[in-house]
Amino acid sequence: MSTIAMVKAAEKRLKGNVRRTPMLTSPFLDEVAGRKVLVKAECLQHTGSFKFRGAWSAISALPKEDRARGVIAFSSGNHAQGVALAASMHKTKAVIIMPEDAPKIKIENTKALNAKVVLYDRAGGEDRDEVANKINEKENLCLIKPFDDPEVIAGQGTTGIEITFQAKDLKVRDADVLVCTGGGGLASGIALALKEYSDNLRVRTVEPKGFDDYAHSLRAGRPVVNKNVTGSICDAIITPTPGLLTFPILNRLAGPGLVVTDEECLNAMALAFKCLKIVIEPGGAAALAAALFHGEYIDGNAVIAVATGGNVDKDMFAHALSKYGEI
Amino acid sequence: MSTIAMVKAAEKRLKGNVRRTPMLTSPFLDEVAGRKVLVKAECLQHTGSFKFRGAWSAISALPKEDRARGVIAFSSGNHAQGVALAASMHKTKAVIIMPEDAPKIKIENTKALNAKVVLYDRAGGEDRDEVANKINEKENLCLIKPFDDPEVIAGQGTTGIEITFQAKDLKVRDADVLVCTGGGGLASGIALALKEYSDNLRVRTVEPKGFDDYAHSLRAGRPVVNKNVTGSICDAIITPTPGLLTFPILNRLAGPGLVVTDEECLNAMALAFKCLKIVIEPGGAAALAAALFHGEYIDGNAVIAVATGGNVDKDMFAHALSKYGEI
Repeated sequence: MSTIAMVKAAEKRLKGNVRRTPMLTSPFLDEVAGRKVLVKAECLQHTGSFKFRGAWSAISALPKEDRARGVIAFSSGNHAQGVALAASMHKTKAVIIMPEDAPKIKIENTKALNAKVVLYDRAGGEDRDEVANKINEKENLCLIKPFDDPEVIAGQGTTGIEITFQAKDLKVRDADVLVCTGGGGLASGIALALKEYSDNLRVRTVEPKGFDDYAHSLRAGRPVVNKNVTGSICDAIITPTPGLLTFPILNRLAGPGLVVTDEECLNAMALAFKCLKIVIEPGGAAALAAALFHGEYIDGNAVIAVATGGNVDKDMFAHALSKYGEI
Repeated sequence: MSTIAMVKAAEKRLKGNVRRTPMLTSPFLDEVAGRKVLVKAECLQHTGSFKFRGAWSAISALPKEDRARGVIAFSSGNHAQGVALAASMHKTKAVIIMPEDAPKIKIENTKALNAKVVLYDRAGGEDRDEVANKINEKENLCLIKPFDDPEVIAGQGTTGIEITFQAKDLKVRDADVLVCTGGGGLASGIALALKEYSDNLRVRTVEPKGFDDYAHSLRAGRPVVNKNVTGSICDAIITPTPGLLTFPILNRLAGPGLVVTDEECLNAMALAFKCLKIVIEPGGAAALAAALFHGEYIDGNAVIAVATGGNVDKDMFAHALSKYGEI
C-alpha cells in the first residue's frame, strides 16, 4: 500500500540525487490550447525520464544486503535506464529484460549505463516474467517493478510535490494535471502528492488510442485489459492493464481518463521543439497532446501536462518535425 | 560602465520574471569530453535564449515615461524575441529591425510576440543602424542594444550568479565556463558575476571559425574586426567585433578564446538531443562543442558550457540529427 508518508520519505532519500525539473510555459502553446499550459519537463530528469525517481526510491529503500546482490527489471526502456543508473550510483549491478522492438536509443543507453541487457520477443508473445524468473533462479536479484511497487510509486510521487510548488509559483492553483499513463505508477504517485499538498489540482490519465485501459477502467470502476499489445508509437506507455496497486489509488483520486492519437503526439512533439526547446518522445508527449488538442474535456483556465520522457530515436523525431514542424 | 552592483540590482528586478534554467549533466557527455560536463540550459529561458534576461533588465531599468513610448532593437533574432516579450510584459510596444536572412522561426516568433518587425538586407550591406535611425526619427523609441549596454550586460550577468550556485550544488568549484560569444554581452556579464561569487570559475569565449574576433582580440589586447560578415550557420553569434563596453571586461577577466567549426556545433546539437533532451541552435551549441571536442585547450576535471539558445529551424535541426545522430 502506497501512502503519502512513503512519498515524503522518498523525497528525503531522493534529495540531491534527483533533478528538480523545470515547469515550462510558452505564450504560443497557451494560444493553441486556449488556456495557460504548464509543462513539467521530466524529459530533463536523469536518464531522460521520470523513471529515475522511482528506481532511485526503490533501490535506496532496499535492505543493504539485498541491494548488494544486485537488481533486475523489465522495461520497454525508460524504467530500464532509470534502474541502470540508480543501481550504478548505488554501486550495485543491474540486469534489464527489454523487448527487442524497443527504441534503439533506449537499449543502447541502458547498456551504456553499465546494465546487462537481455532482449525478449514482445510481439511474438514471449512472456517477460518467465524470462526474468529464469535468469533470477540463479542470481537471486531484487526485482524492481516498473510501477506496481509501493516504493516506486512513492518515488514517482515526488514529481507531484514539485508540481504543486511550481504551479503555486506560477499562480496556478486550480487545474487538471495530465499524466502520460502506462501502468499508472507516475499518475498514482502524483495523485497522492496532490491530495496532500494542493486543494484544486487533480490527476487525469492520458493514453494512446487503443491502449486506453485506464480510461476504460476508471469509467468501469474495475481494471479492464486492452485488446492489443503493440501498434502505437507511444512505446513507453502501452501496458496492457492498470496495476494492482496503482488502480485503486487512481480510481479514488483521478478524474476521467483522456485519450490521444499517435498523430497528436507527433504534433505535440513538434510544438514542444518549437516553443519549449525540449525533446519529448511520443509516449511522453501524450499529456501535452491532450492539453493542446482535447481542451473540450478539460476544466479551468490552466492545465498542467507532464512531459514524461525524451528517449526518442532521431528518425522518429525528424519525422515529427517534418510532418508538424511548419511555422 | 557595468559593475557587479548593477548585476545584483538586475537580479532583483528579474526575480519572478526570469526562469532559473537547469544545469544539466550526462554521463555520456562526460565520456566524450573526458571530464565532467555541466550544461547551463539557457535555451530553456523564456523566448528560447538568455537574451530575455538582458532585455528585461534594460526595459525594467528605463524611466517610466521613456518606457511608455516604446522600445526599438536590432537583432538577428534572439535579442529580438527577448525584447519583444519583455516589452509586451511591460505593456509597451516594440519595433524590431531584423536581417532578412535570419532563421524563419526567429522572425515568426518575434512577430507572434506582438512586435513590429522591419527586415533589412544584411548580406547586401544595408546598415542596420541607419534603418533604425530612420524609423526612430518619428517615434523617439528607446533603443535596447543587443550587448553594448550596461543594463543588458547586467541582466545577462544573472546567468553567472545562477551558474556559481548550481556548480557548487554539483560540487564543481574549479572550472572554465564556456560561453557562446557574439558581441560579448553574456560572457562579460557572467565574468562579472563569477569574479564576485566564485574563486575558481573563469569565463572563456567560444566563437565559430572565421568569426573569432574575440579570440583574436583577447590575444591582441585590443578589438579586432572579422573579415567576413556572413558564412556561418551560427547566426546568433557572428557579430563583427567585440563591444566597446564588453571587451574591456573580458580583456580583464576572461581566459583565451576558443574556436569551433560549424560541423562541431551540429555534432554538439545532436549529442544534446540524445543525452540532455534539449534543443540547441548552432550558435547556442558552440560552447558545448568546445567542451566536447577541444578539451586539450581546457583545464580541470570539469567544464561548464552555456547552451545559450534553441531557436533553430526544423530543417537545420533535422540536418544535425541526420548527420551526427547515430547511436
